Amino acid sequence: MPLSSKHLLGLEGVSKREIELIFKTADIFKEVLERPIKRVPTLTGKTVVNLFYESSTRTRISFELAERRLSADIVSFSASTSSISKGETLKDTARNIEAMKIDIVVIRHPSPGAPLFLSKILNSSIINAGDGAHEHPTQALLDMYSLREKFGKLEGLKVLIVGDISHSRVALSNIYGMTTMGMDVSVCGPATLIPRELDKLGVKIFYNLDEAIKHKDVIMALRIQLERQKVGLFPSIREYHNYFGITKERLKSAKKDVVIMHPGPINRGIELDSDIADSKYSIILGQVANGVAIRMAILYLLSGVESSLKV
Amino acid sequence: MPLSSKHLLGLEGVSKREIELIFKTADIFKEVLERPIKRVPTLTGKTVVNLFYESSTRTRISFELAERRLSADIVSFSASTSSISKGETLKDTARNIEAMKIDIVVIRHPSPGAPLFLSKILNSSIINAGDGAHEHPTQALLDMYSLREKFGKLEGLKVLIVGDISHSRVALSNIYGMTTMGMDVSVCGPATLIPRELDKLGVKIFYNLDEAIKHKDVIMALRIQLERQKVGLFPSIREYHNYFGITKERLKSAKKDVVIMHPGPINRGIELDSDIADSKYSIILGQVANGVAIRMAILYLLSGVESSLKV
Amino acid sequence: MPLSSKHLLGLEGVSKREIELIFKTADIFKEVLERPIKRVPTLTGKTVVNLFYESSTRTRISFELAERRLSADIVSFSASTSSISKGETLKDTARNIEAMKIDIVVIRHPSPGAPLFLSKILNSSIINAGDGAHEHPTQALLDMYSLREKFGKLEGLKVLIVGDISHSRVALSNIYGMTTMGMDVSVCGPATLIPRELDKLGVKIFYNLDEAIKHKDVIMALRIQLERQKVGLFPSIREYHNYFGITKERLKSAKKDVVIMHPGPINRGIELDSDIADSKYSIILGQVANGVAIRMAILYLLSGVESSLKV
Repeated sequence: MPLSSKHLLGLEGVSKREIELIFKTADIFKEVLERPIKRVPTLTGKTVVNLFYESSTRTRISFELAERRLSADIVSFSASTSSISKGETLKDTARNIEAMKIDIVVIRHPSPGAPLFLSKILNSSIINAGDGAHEHPTQALLDMYSLREKFGKLEGLKVLIVGDISHSRVALSNIYGMTTMGMDVSVCGPATLIPRELDKLGVKIFYNLDEAIKHKDVIMALRIQLERQKVGLFPSIREYHNYFGITKERLKSAKKDVVIMHPGPINRGIELDSDIADSKYSIILGQVANGVAIRMAILYLLSGVESSLKV
Repeated sequence: MPLSSKHLLGLEGVSKREIELIFKTADIFKEVLERPIKRVPTLTGKTVVNLFYESSTRTRISFELAERRLSADIVSFSASTSSISKGETLKDTARNIEAMKIDIVVIRHPSPGAPLFLSKILNSSIINAGDGAHEHPTQALLDMYSLREKFGKLEGLKVLIVGDISHSRVALSNIYGMTTMGMDVSVCGPATLIPRELDKLGVKIFYNLDEAIKHKDVIMALRIQLERQKVGLFPSIREYHNYFGITKERLKSAKKDVVIMHPGPINRGIELDSDIADSKYSIILGQVANGVAIRMAILYLLSGVESSLKV
Repeated sequence: MPLSSKHLLGLEGVSKREIELIFKTADIFKEVLERPIKRVPTLTGKTVVNLFYESSTRTRISFELAERRLSADIVSFSASTSSISKGETLKDTARNIEAMKIDIVVIRHPSPGAPLFLSKILNSSIINAGDGAHEHPTQALLDMYSLREKFGKLEGLKVLIVGDISHSRVALSNIYGMTTMGMDVSVCGPATLIPRELDKLGVKIFYNLDEAIKHKDVIMALRIQLERQKVGLFPSIREYHNYFGITKERLKSAKKDVVIMHPGPINRGIELDSDIADSKYSIILGQVANGVAIRMAILYLLSGVESSLKV
């Protein structure tokens, strides 16, 4: 049975069965990525448009590699070179691009809900590559996929997400996905940066990191958006690091084999000590590698290619 | 018989026979675009360079899709990431790129005549994707192709082009092409924005939209270049809308089945009311869809691929 | 026997045998570039990432064309659209990109040593496309390859490099390569812009162009970086032209069949008179054409494709 929607707008409402289908499909593509020739003809003749209204290196490259390795035809544009400066609405841009016979649109946009909006006016499949502070579902899928690879299963794993939870689309997508998969999710950060309503989603809230860290299998440090710090979300970078930075010292109260994750790009020495990012605890680079396989799986599953997967 | 020139610099001087050849070729590619696999091997091993010295979303993407679907090798650059900041002349840039064994150059440039200039110093085929206020021939071709599709023929159709005629490359290319095809072309706009010499091209000039609109089969609203409004081409946006905006109210004096066109991007509520842009009168999205087929036809016809078209 | 390193970081330490292997491989690809279909399947399924941290037209396009014509999968990004604005280190960017299963990284970077640094932390092959004032090895290879084509051999050729030697990565790579190939290398420029230590590399130093020019087989004019002129490397552009510009007048004291080269983009009328750049002396466009063949050769030789070259 395929996915229930032809879009991937978020992990809210995506079922355990669907997430497992995505993982099993990614397993196949992960094997493809280990071959000398990493290209399969699965999406030959299909057209994917990447609309990036926010700057991005790794997510954009990861999607483009996934698309190329599936042999799709790709057109990409980023905000700076587009008609945005001419004042066109997202609706008109999107409908015009779709009129050119597009199969899939991958969109990153600063406004929460932009991918949902597109899904209502276009016939193409829409993949959310990050919409404001809302969701970033492919990131959460690759995070969970990396943990499944590390632990062999997800159910019952104790995860702590640390940082600015309120503004993090990575956190929200992971919270939806991980609770669906039966994981035990906690968050920790400055009180001003944690939405109270999270407990309704079954999430435990901590304000003290030393306490929160205990007995956790996984710690996911979120990126502090330095560019937003001018609005004063917390008193100072140094204070943030003192209270919420993942340091060697602090890890002494964690489980011995705790796993450290980060969606990147890392601010080394702020949310994460540099040597921890590169340590045996870290699966950060594994996350990146899995990102391509997960995105290939999503593109394949949403593409409507009907034949059974031959790679 | 093929096209008489290996370049497409404008529609001035392009014959009725040639335009019909382009349309018939586009018919074939339009059918290709309806297939599940939209790629044909026609231009395999041919190299196309897209030189965009002005920002563009739809024209650039439309050309890139056309090139990809013909299996050409593509290299694109836009002004911001190029050597332009190093002060190189267009001549040197173009000759250097051609030295890399290029078959076709697609150029958009703010200076009228830039494509003509390139055609004189390069051996490659040059396609004008818009040069200043001069011509934008592929846009006019797709406009006429869309009307041919709608009406079954072009000869005798009464078209009204509304807006800043003086600065519009879309208007000029359409005037050349449409008069060649035996259409009856009128223009309407502020007196300061219509060149007097147009009547020599067989074009009727109107300054009153309510009068101009009567008995027309087609109304093409041009985009108002808001970014140029600081030089004060007309008193105000609101006044422009009052006198020259296409509104529901105003369409009451038009033919019942009048067709509305716009080259995009639309300033909704200025040159065109938003609900008219999305109404049954509008063939705007059809224009966009036809753009890819028209550009595939041009690329094919100029490429010098000698074998008969097999798609 | 293949190349001794899997990277091309510079020409320092690259042997005569290796340079000749690169040239012989380029001969094969040069022949491919004359075919109607210029694409070969050599790097099918291999992934090349182009990381351009400095703006570039011709080098970037030349690499991309070389990669496409070898059928590699390509992902490119330039500084302006990347995560650089988010403050990520080169190390993190590179390791993350590599985690996506990259075979070759082509990097241009303002910092000397950036490619060397990458070669120490990545498993991919690294190609230096220009690192600050250090090296630009593919440019020097194509320069020498063009001279080999022109003269039939390199050994014993007398070359004069004119300009800002201190800040030129083109000069340094050529000095390493040309002395290795047994050429007789001289430099000429303002005393403040020539490093004294050059004589240790076997290079003759001139401060007077009229004297330097005599009996030379080849004159290579370097580009004056106008954008750096604000720091006052020499008194004025006009004075530079008077003393070190290659003019028709000045060429009277040169050999009759002297060859003029320039890495481009040319500042016409500053380092080189415009009519000389376009004269029979000049092999500048030939340099550009050879650039694609040389880069195809490098990509092939570093790719680890083990089978014998079938094109």
